[in-house]
Order: sequence, then C-alpha cells, then structure tokens
Amino acid sequence: MATDSAELRQYLDFACRVARQAGLKTLEYFRQPIKVDRKGSGVFDPVTEADQTAEQLIRDEITRHWPSHGIRGEEFEDVVGERWTWVIDPIDGTRAFISGMLHWGVLVALCEHEKATLGVMYQPFTDELFMGSELGAIYHHGDLERRMESRTCPSLPEATLLTTSPRLFEKVGATHVLQALESRVQLTRFGGDCYQYAMLAMGMADLVVETTLKPWDIQALIPVVAGAGGSITTWDGSDANEGGNIVASCDERLHVQTLEMIQSIYT
Amino acid sequence: MATDSAELRQYLDFACRVARQAGLKTLEYFRQPIKVDRKGSGVFDPVTEADQTAEQLIRDEITRHWPSHGIRGEEFEDVVGERWTWVIDPIDGTRAFISGMLHWGVLVALCEHEKATLGVMYQPFTDELFMGSELGAIYHHGDLERRMESRTCPSLPEATLLTTSPRLFEKVGATHVLQALESRVQLTRFGGDCYQYAMLAMGMADLVVETTLKPWDIQALIPVVAGAGGSITTWDGSDANEGGNIVASCDERLHVQTLEMIQSIYT
Repeated sequence: MATDSAELRQYLDFACRVARQAGLKTLEYFRQPIKVDRKGSGVFDPVTEADQTAEQLIRDEITRHWPSHGIRGEEFEDVVGERWTWVIDPIDGTRAFISGMLHWGVLVALCEHEKATLGVMYQPFTDELFMGSELGAIYHHGDLERRMESRTCPSLPEATLLTTSPRLFEKVGATHVLQALESRVQLTRFGGDCYQYAMLAMGMADLVVETTLKPWDIQALIPVVAGAGGSITTWDGSDANEGGNIVASCDERLHVQTLEMIQSIYT
Repeated sequence: MATDSAELRQYLDFACRVARQAGLKTLEYFRQPIKVDRKGSGVFDPVTEADQTAEQLIRDEITRHWPSHGIRGEEFEDVVGERWTWVIDPIDGTRAFISGMLHWGVLVALCEHEKATLGVMYQPFTDELFMGSELGAIYHHGDLERRMESRTCPSLPEATLLTTSPRLFEKVGATHVLQALESRVQLTRFGGDCYQYAMLAMGMADLVVETTLKPWDIQALIPVVAGAGGSITTWDGSDANEGGNIVASCDERLHVQTLEMIQSIYT
C-alpha cells in the first residue's frame, strides 16, 4: 500500500478541490470567442488561454500546499519532486472544448514515483466529477454521490468500443487494428477523449482503445478505471502510466482477449 | 411566410414543452441498465424503451392538442395530416445515449407540407434547448436564454468540421469525400449527432457533413441552423428536408465552396 488512508484522503480531497476550481476557470472561456494558438507548425494543436490559466491555478495551489511535490503538465515546465508528483491536464479534449462539445474534462493525478495513486476528472459544464484510488471509484454529480463499478463483458462480440478518432490509429500505422476491433465488437462510438474512461468506469461502455497518449492524458484516468474494477494497460500489456497506445476494459477477460487480438496483428 | 407569428409562437411553445417532457422521460432511462433490442438482423440499430416511451408521450400530446395534424417518427406508424405534420426523433444519437455519452437529444419539428417550419432540440442531461424558426434561433440553458448566431468562416482552410462517424461515409462510397474534407479543414471532430448542428448554430463550429440521414434526423435541425444564419442542404444542393447526405455550414461562402468540392469528386 502506497500510503496510509488518512494521507490518501487528504490528497484526494485536494485533487477534487483543485480540479473543480480549475474547471470553473475553464468554463469562463468555454463557448466564448477565444484565440487559438498553434503549437509548432503544420500541426493544429490548440492551446488556449483557458488551458494555461487553469494549469497555472492548479500549480499555484500545489506549490502552496505541497511545496516538496513535483508537478508535470502539458503547458509549463516540469517541477521535480521526490516521492510525489502531481500530473495535470487542465483540458483533456481541447478540440472538443474549442468546438463547444461536451466530452472534455480537467485531469489531476497524484503519482508516487511515476505511478498514479489517485486520479480525478472533472467536467465543469455538467458538474460531474469522477475520482479513483485504491479506495474505489466515486462519481459526483451536483449533490449526487455514488460508487462506480465497471460492468461485466466477457468478450469482444458483446462489447461497446469507444475511441476518440480513427486518425489516431493512422498515426501509428494501426488502421487495421481499429478495423479489426470494429468488425468484432457490437458497437463503436467516436469522439470521447477522457469522458470515455469515465463511462467505462461507470459501467456504460466496455472498451476504450486509443493511441499516442501522453502520460498526462492517461494518469488521472488509471485509478478511476482500476478503482471501478476495470483493467488498463498499453497494447503490449505494460503499465499504462507512461502513456502510448492504451487499452482500458471493463472486464479482465475482455482485456486479455483484446490484447491478444491486437498483438496478433500489430507488432 | 408560412403562418402568422402568433400561430408560430404557439407551435414553438408547444414543441419546446413536449421536447422537455420527453427529454425528462428519456433521462429516467439514461445510464440505467436497459434492454437494447435489435431492429432487423445483422445490423446493430438500438431501439430502447426510452425511445419508444418518449415518442409515445409526444404523440399523445400532439393528438390531444392538434388532432388534425400529422405525425411522423422513427418508432411508430405515420399519422397522415393535412397542412401540418410533426416529425419526431425521441433520441437522436441512440448510440451515444446507450454508452452514457452526452451528444444526443430529443428532436421535434413541425413541417408544413414536408418542409420544417420550426425545430427544437433538447438535451435533458445538460438542460439545454436549441430552437429555430423564421423568428431566429434561441438557446436556453437553465434560466439563461440567448439568441444564437452562426459565425463567419469564408473558406475550408479555416473551418472546424464536425461529423458523427467515418463509417457513415463508407456506407455511401464516400470515404474519399471525408478524406478530402479532413485534408482541407483546420480541425475535424467526430461523434456529435444532433449536437453538432446545435454547436454550428451557436457559432462554435463551421461545418457539419453527414450521410444517410432520415427526415426525422434532420428536419428539427434545419430551422435551428437556418434561424442562426447558417446554410443547410443535401450534397447536391437540394432541400435538406428529405434527409440523405447533408452539409450544414455557418457561412454561405463556405457552403458554396464545400458543395463544389464534394460535387467535383462525388457523383
């Protein structure tokens, strides 16, 4: 066990509070005319003022409360810590955000030596918070609070698959992997980003398969999925904490089957 | 002008009220364990109890208030009317709905001889209502009420494109159309169903391109898009009221350019 449960609860409370604060900050920019910058050239990778303002807010709170902790986020330089590092994605699903759509959220994880101990996702427009740790996974919506449990789904033909975009499979030469998955599952749905993992934890979907994730895209979601009883690894079955190509499953049997299928056609 | 504005307002109020009532009914089933039927064989086309219950509720209200009007919906037999016909899609985005995702809504249109005079989309989880008619397009969110206006976007390279799934392009042999669009626009986002048209009307996106829509998938959205200042037609520039392959654009110049592009490579 990574830490005692009083300490863990303290960190969980903090993570929920800063995710909510940052989320309310992002809402000030949601569906407002905002300037969209380009990172690099040729590739459209939106960075908004909302992203930066929200990340700065979380960073300031971490520095004030836990000055010895590290900080890792998309928008600014890493702060090196010792045992604990906070990993932030202030708006996961920036493309959804700038299009006014709803499948995005604020992600906050606390990692002990590179592994996520707890994770929080907050969607401020719907006021939904999804949190996970070894204490389990909890959903908050307004005054509602309930435990999340991933559902049972023993095999691919019964599965609902969620993934953000087919283009992310093309990027890693895995168009055939997506085609094989789509042909085997019952239903595929695109366009989810972090919200997909929340729905898997909630028992509404069975499988999330994605590629080229950064650590800050996924670390907050690992304890949410695992805390709800799901499985999450890379495509080769390794630890998901470093990102890359990811499979999350509601059911260990489905996870094993999906990894076998992917590994048989993608190396 | 199809009707006088007092009559139009009366119909608009009615449409908003029944869309809200039906939406609240669908919410009773949202994220609950529900039985998903299959329509036909081989194809996964979910019909839920939510769908049928919500459509029946709207049909009952129409019959009670406007007994001479026609009714057209996905779940039950058409009722033939004379001048006016109500067109209903109780849950547009059923696949999103059964996956717990947020991009779905209740659609209600009133058509005068096959053409939508007014349209309403209601998303009950977020309590957002989008309505359109020749009086303009209005957004309601809780107590907030404001006019919607589509934004300016003169050409494809500046456009944000929304579409539900690449598989819908495959179905009509138009994978190359999606590829051409994606290569020309600034940003593409998948997984939106009816919510995409609402975001276009709200000035958050520029282009929605879809295929194989049924009349009840699109008729409620035509007055929302048009009332906000956008354009909406089939790919060949015909009236969108009969469904099929659809383009909606925030800006007439973008619309012309998009139709020209599509027609040059798809016949």
